[in-house]
Amino acid sequence: MMRNRSWTLARRPDGAVAVDDFALVESTFGAPALAEGEILVRNRIFAVAPTIRNWLNDPGESYRGSIPIGGTIGGMAGCEVIASADPSYPPGARIVAMSRWEDWSVLRPAQAPVPVFPMPGGMTFEQALGSYSPNSLTAYFGLIDVGRPRAGETVVVSGAAGSVGSLVVQIANILGCRVIGIAGSADKCRWLERACGADATIDYRIENLGERLDALAPGGIDLFFDNVGGDILQAAADRMARHGRIVLCGQISAYDRGGGAPGPRDMMKLVYGSIRMQGFVVGDYVARAGEAHDALSNWIAEGRIGIRVDLRDGFDRLPTAFVDLFRGANQGTLLVTAG
Amino acid sequence: MMRNRSWTLARRPDGAVAVDDFALVESTFGAPALAEGEILVRNRIFAVAPTIRNWLNDPGESYRGSIPIGGTIGGMAGCEVIASADPSYPPGARIVAMSRWEDWSVLRPAQAPVPVFPMPGGMTFEQALGSYSPNSLTAYFGLIDVGRPRAGETVVVSGAAGSVGSLVVQIANILGCRVIGIAGSADKCRWLERACGADATIDYRIENLGERLDALAPGGIDLFFDNVGGDILQAAADRMARHGRIVLCGQISAYDRGGGAPGPRDMMKLVYGSIRMQGFVVGDYVARAGEAHDALSNWIAEGRIGIRVDLRDGFDRLPTAFVDLFRGANQGTLLVTAG
Repeated sequence: MMRNRSWTLARRPDGAVAVDDFALVESTFGAPALAEGEILVRNRIFAVAPTIRNWLNDPGESYRGSIPIGGTIGGMAGCEVIASADPSYPPGARIVAMSRWEDWSVLRPAQAPVPVFPMPGGMTFEQALGSYSPNSLTAYFGLIDVGRPRAGETVVVSGAAGSVGSLVVQIANILGCRVIGIAGSADKCRWLERACGADATIDYRIENLGERLDALAPGGIDLFFDNVGGDILQAAADRMARHGRIVLCGQISAYDRGGGAPGPRDMMKLVYGSIRMQGFVVGDYVARAGEAHDALSNWIAEGRIGIRVDLRDGFDRLPTAFVDLFRGANQGTLLVTAG
Repeated sequence: MMRNRSWTLARRPDGAVAVDDFALVESTFGAPALAEGEILVRNRIFAVAPTIRNWLNDPGESYRGSIPIGGTIGGMAGCEVIASADPSYPPGARIVAMSRWEDWSVLRPAQAPVPVFPMPGGMTFEQALGSYSPNSLTAYFGLIDVGRPRAGETVVVSGAAGSVGSLVVQIANILGCRVIGIAGSADKCRWLERACGADATIDYRIENLGERLDALAPGGIDLFFDNVGGDILQAAADRMARHGRIVLCGQISAYDRGGGAPGPRDMMKLVYGSIRMQGFVVGDYVARAGEAHDALSNWIAEGRIGIRVDLRDGFDRLPTAFVDLFRGANQGTLLVTAG
């Protein structure tokens, strides 16, 4: 018999998520009989990502997914295949997959809600969920493929000090764009300017966002990479240059509410400005992951980008780490090992 | 001395536009001294288009443009150049340009808000503002270049019986798409199905739009071509297929209000669905007008499309024609000759 620890949803968060919204459950189980297409994995490391917050709300907005009360929390993880009834994933294989916050999971890769990411030989779990994580691929493809920046353009990034945002700032800088980062503290802004190559920053908690954008981007915003939504999206949408692009990556300002993440107030601005607003998910780019791995590893080797990983040890610390995300208390991509 | 008749803005419309919002002014003038870059044109035919409604509101939303009280109404017109201080437009040249509702106008083509459209030799004013009008180019490039439809996809068109919409329906049908038209009367719906190749239609005034879309597009909408906005945009945005595209052409439901034309309530639907929402103006495509002329003239010659022109004679009838647009009382692209 094997021991399984699981973090489950104790209750639906009332606004901001709290540690007590989660409950640790322990159980034992025997070797499961796997149906065709199923694999048994040991979850070794967990990516603690804002999007999980969406799944804690009740199923009214069911397209976002909703974890039932008592259900195990889902999320991307680095997994080792222990037993397999899917020949594509033999025992011993290592994958990054949508799994659950527990020691052992039975997954069905061919029907996973997010495709399984390849792990090139020699890549560690920390790298696969850190420097080369789905977050890094999100930054890379969201900026380059969805946003299509050109040298000399003005790029504005919200949530700029986050895992995705800080890489977007660095890549946009490498591509020769003028980059303005929006973040929530003086420390974060300083780090973006000193370490990430941001040309300017805005601390939205103490500065007037609209006035600062007017001053910093008098010719308008060519590309807005949005992780936040709400008032920040509105302020940027009001200031787009003609043929501007809004990359919709996340809307973290709305995750605590469960209702909608409202769009800009006036679609005619998009019409008259020939503005493109486009959402995407990283699962769209699994087949092209190698392209991002190559570019990122070159830039890392050249010292042109740095990807901060906030690595924490210990399964018990998952809820605390998750709450830290929404308090802005993490320092880069947040990973928790099964410990 | 020459006589000039002008339709001016008598007062700002209070909600729905009315004939009494306009005033006819007559004046006389001598041959004007043209500054460098200016041309004197005789306006021969006027395109009566919904977008003009935006310019009748007060300048709070100044990016849309605002005509002052007493100012002459602006709009696209077929113009004959009478005198010129711009060598690109010699006397005798015929152009389609953003002009004004008056007999004579002094224009400055190089600085026009909308680029001047070419008129191939042999094309009449009626053709240039009818079959090959900016509205036709809007339909062609909005569907093909912005929307990028593929054969077999489900395309939904709002304002489908209008000048732009009815051509979008026909082109999408030629391209092998399944086309659902949304219009505001049983007559219009019948015409769309019988004459324009719509596979299905929805009369939004008497049917439940959401339920009908669910029934007609159970796999979701691949491409939504929106001329209307508001509740219709929301209903479509809620039902987009993955990788769907929303082409923002116009938002006629909001023009009477002066405030915003609100976007969809939940940007996370765009994120999770990898949805692209894109505005455009036909001025973006002036350099490629020949491509649309060629395709449209082939389709017209083959009898595969028909473009309805509602041609009315007489300068005095401009305001009545404009009000008819918002009552849905026009039968296709609405043109008024100077008469």
